[in-house]
Amino acid sequence: MVHIMKRLILASVFTLHVAGAWAQQNDSVQIRKIVNEVLLSGKCYNDLRYLSNEIGGRLSGSDEADRAVLFMYSKMKEYNFDTVWLQPVMVPHWIRGEKEQAYATRGNKRIELNVCALGNSVGTGINGLSAPVIEVKNANELELLGKQGKLKGKIVFFNSPMNVLHIHTGTAYGEAGWQRTKGPAMASRYGAVGALVRSLTLALDEHPHTGATQYNDSFPSIPACAISTIHANELSALLSIASYAETQVYMRTTSRMLPDVQSYNVIGEIRGTEKPKEVIVVGGHLDSWDNGDGAHDDGAGCVQSVEVLRTLKTLGIKPKRTIRCVLFMNEENGLKGALKYAEWAGKSDEKHLVAIESDAGGFTPRGFNTSATGKSFEKIKSWQPLLKPYGIETIKYPGGGADIGPLNKYGTVLIGFVPDSQRYFDYHHTSIDTFDKINRRELELGAACMTSLIWLISEYGL
Amino acid sequence: MVHIMKRLILASVFTLHVAGAWAQQNDSVQIRKIVNEVLLSGKCYNDLRYLSNEIGGRLSGSDEADRAVLFMYSKMKEYNFDTVWLQPVMVPHWIRGEKEQAYATRGNKRIELNVCALGNSVGTGINGLSAPVIEVKNANELELLGKQGKLKGKIVFFNSPMNVLHIHTGTAYGEAGWQRTKGPAMASRYGAVGALVRSLTLALDEHPHTGATQYNDSFPSIPACAISTIHANELSALLSIASYAETQVYMRTTSRMLPDVQSYNVIGEIRGTEKPKEVIVVGGHLDSWDNGDGAHDDGAGCVQSVEVLRTLKTLGIKPKRTIRCVLFMNEENGLKGALKYAEWAGKSDEKHLVAIESDAGGFTPRGFNTSATGKSFEKIKSWQPLLKPYGIETIKYPGGGADIGPLNKYGTVLIGFVPDSQRYFDYHHTSIDTFDKINRRELELGAACMTSLIWLISEYGL
Repeated sequence: MVHIMKRLILASVFTLHVAGAWAQQNDSVQIRKIVNEVLLSGKCYNDLRYLSNEIGGRLSGSDEADRAVLFMYSKMKEYNFDTVWLQPVMVPHWIRGEKEQAYATRGNKRIELNVCALGNSVGTGINGLSAPVIEVKNANELELLGKQGKLKGKIVFFNSPMNVLHIHTGTAYGEAGWQRTKGPAMASRYGAVGALVRSLTLALDEHPHTGATQYNDSFPSIPACAISTIHANELSALLSIASYAETQVYMRTTSRMLPDVQSYNVIGEIRGTEKPKEVIVVGGHLDSWDNGDGAHDDGAGCVQSVEVLRTLKTLGIKPKRTIRCVLFMNEENGLKGALKYAEWAGKSDEKHLVAIESDAGGFTPRGFNTSATGKSFEKIKSWQPLLKPYGIETIKYPGGGADIGPLNKYGTVLIGFVPDSQRYFDYHHTSIDTFDKINRRELELGAACMTSLIWLISEYGL
Repeated sequence: MVHIMKRLILASVFTLHVAGAWAQQNDSVQIRKIVNEVLLSGKCYNDLRYLSNEIGGRLSGSDEADRAVLFMYSKMKEYNFDTVWLQPVMVPHWIRGEKEQAYATRGNKRIELNVCALGNSVGTGINGLSAPVIEVKNANELELLGKQGKLKGKIVFFNSPMNVLHIHTGTAYGEAGWQRTKGPAMASRYGAVGALVRSLTLALDEHPHTGATQYNDSFPSIPACAISTIHANELSALLSIASYAETQVYMRTTSRMLPDVQSYNVIGEIRGTEKPKEVIVVGGHLDSWDNGDGAHDDGAGCVQSVEVLRTLKTLGIKPKRTIRCVLFMNEENGLKGALKYAEWAGKSDEKHLVAIESDAGGFTPRGFNTSATGKSFEKIKSWQPLLKPYGIETIKYPGGGADIGPLNKYGTVLIGFVPDSQRYFDYHHTSIDTFDKINRRELELGAACMTSLIWLISEYGL
């Protein structure tokens, strides 16, 4: 009896194994079809060319953001998605104003500084701001100097470089990011009158990197700029010269926040044939900073997300679950689009199964990071061998993305697409985030991997 | 007794397992040190800046090649390698001559064509060459047309694009490469008077890609040029217009082969402490094409190979086996340096255990391909988890490299470093293979992975 049981168990294990192998073989054929369609006839590269070169930087509230909404809407219509709509959302409208100016002086020395206003920051006024400058390397030093009254009336110069030893550059960005996001507010608390923040990049060059800063309502909003890494080093060197002369920085910015304006998330979907109420979201953010063309951040993620649905439509694949492309407005300086979509999702009678975001550049694919745990994680991981031929070599916990984050509270599994990270912060939030930095095949392989994973989820659930 | 045996076996398996885990842990600490040294204090990026920007294209026989020899020799000395020497080798001396010209005419239509002479090709003479042009897509078509006498007196236009569906671009290059390497000789056999070859790239742009062609001594050497992919498409379109007018191409090249000259392989080594006669070679090729700066092909591989030994020296690591950096001269149009080194190796009393080559660009690391089989292969593969944090995700058979290939006959295990391949053929053999296409961290991570693997081999053998 025991032997018969064993044999039965063995037989069923064998059957399952063979069935599994057979399913994976079919899946790999389907995935190869998907990849071929994107590499042979993909539209994402040309869509990104238009978004970057013809529209360009598209900060929330700008005319360019409006044009980007209409362009992506028209593309979803052109690609024949089942339903396409605009979801209204009120967004901040910050403007940079005139080209920023800055220089440092000490005794008879003077150096020009490449700076740009941080997003959401107030301007200095048209006459600019002149004040002694003090360098800080970390939050403890800031607190100590602040409590000693040494930041009062000063421009605080945050100069902690990103750590080159992190292999994934995003880790280094995460660690150093407080200087930009919270530094100016932390300095203001102790009476500082301005802030200069070392650009968040591993490159040593002359490009200042913008990005949002968050003021604290309890303290004055002080003018805040990013400074290029080369000029941060020069300023630091100037400060280190033994001399009694005080180092002064002059900076002039005319940035300001205007009243909120109406904008839109751009949404298109293919309705599921078997479980239409189970939704898989794929997206990126449509807004970008104003100083470059937002090619990698996040034009790439937008056109890849559209390519996912276009590819399925073109191949005549009818997904079992609903696949919805959401291009979120205002990730960069407010996240209002993401919050609006999540609010709407919370009220709908749909189940948001999974949300996948591409917002780490259009570089060669390397993996997916996910919030999934337990069996859901194992299921995603079991598909990795199917995606490996196209570059997906790592499926890791944790993971997600800024725009899909707010869906987490509904139990939605979050997945972030992980392209190679080495070049991203060379271009991030600068004037050189332009279309010529995009490699067609890298962008397309990313879109193909995203499409393949989404197709697997739509077939098998999680 | 059986139980005791089992326990003993279990205990020793356990011990082995723990010892193995312990060794891997120590190795991972050592590898982290290696990676940190390269990322914090690496010299390869600045060495490549000089090689690319100050010396530039360095075709065999040129003054620039001589300067590159002296520069890399001086670097090996500066980095304090145990022994540094120059190995003389006679190399071909081909020169491009004046800027190439070409255009196509049909009826009253005329289009300019961006072309460049193929390496080793003969010139057209100063008056240029005018002839009717005929397009061929594959070798069968060429043979058929040739036997029908339709190639006689013609310029044969080889226009088979690289296949976008290969995920590794090198595979597509390998498939399409016959057009450049053998096409002109194949056409000459049937009386063709010239050849135009579609550039070997997946990019659609205006840059012609040079590269060596091989004549067949039994047939005349005919002038041969590469044509940019955009102009190849335009020429093909011109040919496809329904019209009785003949399409003529005019091309003018003044390239020619001069007598062989003496050049050098640049060699430096760290002598092994325990098995100095067991040698691990690491290298790239020092010559490059003349039209660009040879930054990716193969300046990157050269500076990475030097970085391997510099890093070990700087960290005070004394390898058990001898590690030798060989910068081979003349890979591009003769392979004379590689043949000379192999000839010398064959006569020495050393055992060339392994040879590792970096000649696929300085892009983000992805893997190693190797000629190793059986236990040697398993040993290399067992180290992959140690290298995965730094990008090495695939160890595959087969593998090697042009310069290390000739060592194969001595039983040397060949290993090719595999960076991401998507961008390589955008720049390969063109005027845009320049230093600005190099990302510092990608280059350094490649060098760090190479150093780590070489250190493991030097410790544990193969």
